[in-house]
Amino acid sequence: MKALTYDGKGKIKVVDKPKPEIKNADEAIVKLLRTTICGTDLHIIKGDVPTCEQGRTLGHEGVGIVEDIGSEVKGIKKGDRVLIGCITGCATCSFCKRSMQDQCTHGAWVLGHTIDGTQAEHVRIPFASNNLFPIPQGVSERSLLLYSDILPTGLEVGALRGQVVPGSTVAIVGAGPIGLASAIAARLYSPKKIVFFDRDQSRLDVAKKMGADEVINTSKTSVEGVRAMAKQHFGEVDGFDVVIEAVGVPETFQMCQDLVGIGGRIANVGVHGVGVKLDIDRLWPRSTTAAGKLDTSALITHDFKFNEIEKAYDIFGRAAETKSLKVNIEFD
Amino acid sequence: MKALTYDGKGKIKVVDKPKPEIKNADEAIVKLLRTTICGTDLHIIKGDVPTCEQGRTLGHEGVGIVEDIGSEVKGIKKGDRVLIGCITGCATCSFCKRSMQDQCTHGAWVLGHTIDGTQAEHVRIPFASNNLFPIPQGVSERSLLLYSDILPTGLEVGALRGQVVPGSTVAIVGAGPIGLASAIAARLYSPKKIVFFDRDQSRLDVAKKMGADEVINTSKTSVEGVRAMAKQHFGEVDGFDVVIEAVGVPETFQMCQDLVGIGGRIANVGVHGVGVKLDIDRLWPRSTTAAGKLDTSALITHDFKFNEIEKAYDIFGRAAETKSLKVNIEFD
Amino acid sequence: MKALTYDGKGKIKVVDKPKPEIKNADEAIVKLLRTTICGTDLHIIKGDVPTCEQGRTLGHEGVGIVEDIGSEVKGIKKGDRVLIGCITGCATCSFCKRSMQDQCTHGAWVLGHTIDGTQAEHVRIPFASNNLFPIPQGVSERSLLLYSDILPTGLEVGALRGQVVPGSTVAIVGAGPIGLASAIAARLYSPKKIVFFDRDQSRLDVAKKMGADEVINTSKTSVEGVRAMAKQHFGEVDGFDVVIEAVGVPETFQMCQDLVGIGGRIANVGVHGVGVKLDIDRLWPRSTTAAGKLDTSALITHDFKFNEIEKAYDIFGRAAETKSLKVNIEFD
Amino acid sequence: MKALTYDGKGKIKVVDKPKPEIKNADEAIVKLLRTTICGTDLHIIKGDVPTCEQGRTLGHEGVGIVEDIGSEVKGIKKGDRVLIGCITGCATCSFCKRSMQDQCTHGAWVLGHTIDGTQAEHVRIPFASNNLFPIPQGVSERSLLLYSDILPTGLEVGALRGQVVPGSTVAIVGAGPIGLASAIAARLYSPKKIVFFDRDQSRLDVAKKMGADEVINTSKTSVEGVRAMAKQHFGEVDGFDVVIEAVGVPETFQMCQDLVGIGGRIANVGVHGVGVKLDIDRLWPRSTTAAGKLDTSALITHDFKFNEIEKAYDIFGRAAETKSLKVNIEFD
Repeated sequence: MKALTYDGKGKIKVVDKPKPEIKNADEAIVKLLRTTICGTDLHIIKGDVPTCEQGRTLGHEGVGIVEDIGSEVKGIKKGDRVLIGCITGCATCSFCKRSMQDQCTHGAWVLGHTIDGTQAEHVRIPFASNNLFPIPQGVSERSLLLYSDILPTGLEVGALRGQVVPGSTVAIVGAGPIGLASAIAARLYSPKKIVFFDRDQSRLDVAKKMGADEVINTSKTSVEGVRAMAKQHFGEVDGFDVVIEAVGVPETFQMCQDLVGIGGRIANVGVHGVGVKLDIDRLWPRSTTAAGKLDTSALITHDFKFNEIEKAYDIFGRAAETKSLKVNIEFD
Repeated sequence: MKALTYDGKGKIKVVDKPKPEIKNADEAIVKLLRTTICGTDLHIIKGDVPTCEQGRTLGHEGVGIVEDIGSEVKGIKKGDRVLIGCITGCATCSFCKRSMQDQCTHGAWVLGHTIDGTQAEHVRIPFASNNLFPIPQGVSERSLLLYSDILPTGLEVGALRGQVVPGSTVAIVGAGPIGLASAIAARLYSPKKIVFFDRDQSRLDVAKKMGADEVINTSKTSVEGVRAMAKQHFGEVDGFDVVIEAVGVPETFQMCQDLVGIGGRIANVGVHGVGVKLDIDRLWPRSTTAAGKLDTSALITHDFKFNEIEKAYDIFGRAAETKSLKVNIEFD
Repeated sequence: MKALTYDGKGKIKVVDKPKPEIKNADEAIVKLLRTTICGTDLHIIKGDVPTCEQGRTLGHEGVGIVEDIGSEVKGIKKGDRVLIGCITGCATCSFCKRSMQDQCTHGAWVLGHTIDGTQAEHVRIPFASNNLFPIPQGVSERSLLLYSDILPTGLEVGALRGQVVPGSTVAIVGAGPIGLASAIAARLYSPKKIVFFDRDQSRLDVAKKMGADEVINTSKTSVEGVRAMAKQHFGEVDGFDVVIEAVGVPETFQMCQDLVGIGGRIANVGVHGVGVKLDIDRLWPRSTTAAGKLDTSALITHDFKFNEIEKAYDIFGRAAETKSLKVNIEFD
Repeated sequence: MKALTYDGKGKIKVVDKPKPEIKNADEAIVKLLRTTICGTDLHIIKGDVPTCEQGRTLGHEGVGIVEDIGSEVKGIKKGDRVLIGCITGCATCSFCKRSMQDQCTHGAWVLGHTIDGTQAEHVRIPFASNNLFPIPQGVSERSLLLYSDILPTGLEVGALRGQVVPGSTVAIVGAGPIGLASAIAARLYSPKKIVFFDRDQSRLDVAKKMGADEVINTSKTSVEGVRAMAKQHFGEVDGFDVVIEAVGVPETFQMCQDLVGIGGRIANVGVHGVGVKLDIDRLWPRSTTAAGKLDTSALITHDFKFNEIEKAYDIFGRAAETKSLKVNIEFD
């Protein structure tokens, strides 16, 4: 089968690999239907993730069909359309028992990192009972693609840790994919207002199109001026109830501190990589209609076939220039 | 001034009373703009509330203008348009400190009960700093009228105690005013589906118009058949995540137990009268846009002038026949 | 091996059975060191549990040594001393994912019910990674025996659902094993006072010995008089903050309603049988010193050898007369 | 009356002042029985608090007798022995309604700061219904002195924000008064182990005497070595569940990050001055027996008469040398 692999610092390569096979009774083999590229994949290629060896198939997000299944796997059967969770939890170690799958002793972030990932025609999924999620009838796979990683992160780290409640005023610093996903998740809790702050007008335009109440271009003002501007425009005298940090550099974190009101919360999404707790379980039972309610389609800016995956990496890697947010890569 | 008073069992009477005056430094006098009638007022008239004496001005809901104010009142000034909280809390007793204003040692439900209420041209409000809520610019008074009692109850007792979260399946048993208000509040948390159960098709029609996903007329089926029907129609195999009881008789409570799923919650709104904790504070800061987001207008079925208040009582008292839900009574 | 079995309504019988063997890769075989008898076992014998067939080995509590282990079991190895969880969870079904192991699709209460239990020399434990808990060095097995069922129930259902916090006043209605276990668990949260109510003076004496602040014999007063008595003696004017129902009959539940204060909570332990969520995980990591801090030894009133198990059933079954609470049954 | 006042940078002075009088109906005058000195008082004297003017009577902690009372004060009467809350909340502003009394629009930290404080024979307390707490019969005033500030801070910021639960492992960095108070509060939740880290052996000795499970002198090891030492001694492989920062300098905060385990919490007590939320209400109803259970006496290292208050300041100001923690200053 074809697989996109990390080929050493700065390089990727599509290679032929043998189809994976079940090694343990609790595993499954999934034939991929769609996958996508994450900022973490770019970090690996830059050489920032030394635990990822040359030759590794990249990718930790995807939607597919269960092709083979071990004897101990429960709740999933051959032929099921499934979402693949980006974090692999064993369900039995002390961390999984505390819902900290990202620290799982036997799993955690392994896909596309220490075992072969989802940017290939087939992938082997350990502890499949816990890490594959059947897709309800009638739900679009394309929109579900974002449920592997970015939406659960937006929900858990943005909306829930930020404690968005009905009527909250929410500032999101950073209108990239994770900031936009946080807005989608925050909206489930009926905030009074969502305001985006970013330096890139094209991203702010997407945010506006996706329903942001206001957007502020911070490239045109000093950091100090932003809060003053926020107050002047929106009358948030005390600052925002919830500020979501979705960039991850010191100056944006400082901006968050300037924006947050007394008694408000800063939810730090930006500095986390893949290694965050991604509780798909919490989001998943809500997905049947959520897939309708949560309009995630605006987040997917480009569509490719799998044989164009190197081109997809190129477009996604030059996001500022190409205005890409998330890419959809389809298998035949 | 004119006031609608309880005139002994089965009777009401509009009388002339002296305008109320400030007796303590922490009180305010409010000139009413609008009021409404509550099921509790009907209970008083039936003679069910012996603590309410003959001659008492009825009413515990209203919107008005601050006309006079004691020296110790904070956060409110003469001329402010305000919402009147139906439960009067002192803010200092051990119950108020635990947010149980309905058990307040110095207040609780007193308006239209043990002191003169809001169905009059003027009303005296004790502990005014805590029990009057300034109305933001540009918000319709008519829609805010429901914030005195019914919406906070729907939020606190229905949505919050029922723990509605994004994706929840919600059943509401009873499509009267409180059931409808619970649906409005529940919707703030993005449930997957809201299904109403009632015997009165006209109420179910209102529920449907207000956005219920499905309505089930229980007059046409046995109680036992309802859950089977729910399963058949909606595929809620395990029952509903949240069931809101908004009627208050044993057989509807039984129906709730039939409808709730494993791990689900029954929120009991129906059996509570006025004496429930009504945390307007929790809802109020959210009202500026909420008044837009929460379309409460369908709940107000009839409009009257204050000089028609006896007619309003008649219409509201024959709800099944007149299809009245809440009435809006305007002062000149 | 020897096993104590249900022999049809009203009867038990010690029989010889083949030693259990591992059937699935996620199971383990445990050689029992100690077991105990639960009220649920008595219910089975009375014929109240039709899902339990004649010939079934009884018992769902125990401490033992891992004798054999399937290839997929994690976190446990041969030779480990382990506590056996009375509720068997698969960790992967939708209920286990929501920490409702008692509703587990593949397990739940099965031990000594639908599969052979712990009142035998050996027992097969399904999903062993999740249902066996290694015992720390230096902890007494005898005191840990109560961790299989009664202490987790006291913690989860009594202390946690009752929301005992430092300074709470706690009333416990029923001084049987589960009431006493609730007191042990409640004490972890530093309540101001724990008061027991029971009709049996000998049980009240045990409660007093175990550290109850006060005990009230309700056989000597009318139900109506109890609250008055409580007020008079203890000055709990508003009633108790937390009332734990540990009997399970209508009149004790009524007594709880009489005892609870405004804003207080009634935690209903008594009506639950085995089928309650028993989150050993929540208690377990705390047990190393807890075994010292929680002095559970007073709860074990009788010690037997396994070859005396029928006598143990007799003593435990005549609790009122024999003053038995929990029995310790040791294997050679 | 006599009062200890701030006399400009570096100076204090005992002066004669007129006895305070009630100015508003919601105030009370308290005759002091005891007071104490806080680190914040020393900050004022150093000139670090420019909002505190020369001539201001210092002190925000104290126990006394209600001498005079305004007409609107509720729940308190002349002659009551009371604890004075160090943070003055109005109970009606938007911050007080959210239990953020330290941000109160009309009060907050005013005592001994912007209005005359408790280091005087009499003090005027605004919003007395909310800021005076009657002392139960039979409770020692000396031990209650710590309830004005240091114990509520230890409870709210240390134990509750740190989420100490039964079985938690707790590290406290800093064995000064606030660290010791945090330990007292943490113990209410039955932690498995409390370990203190400090450079001052005499403070560690007090911690040990007050019941710390272990103490580690960090002056004798590199910061980097501390976690290794912690692991070696205590086997906390994953680090501590809760780490309480009770010093407030960057290197101790770094040490906390070294000590905290995966999924653990750092509770930051050290950097807060008086301006923290001090929810006496949450602690107070628990104090009757708490005063017995919480043995705070070891925290009071020195006793003075009010006419020795300048000497008390001297002793308290040279804490490292005099080994003082909290001082008790009695009025005649």
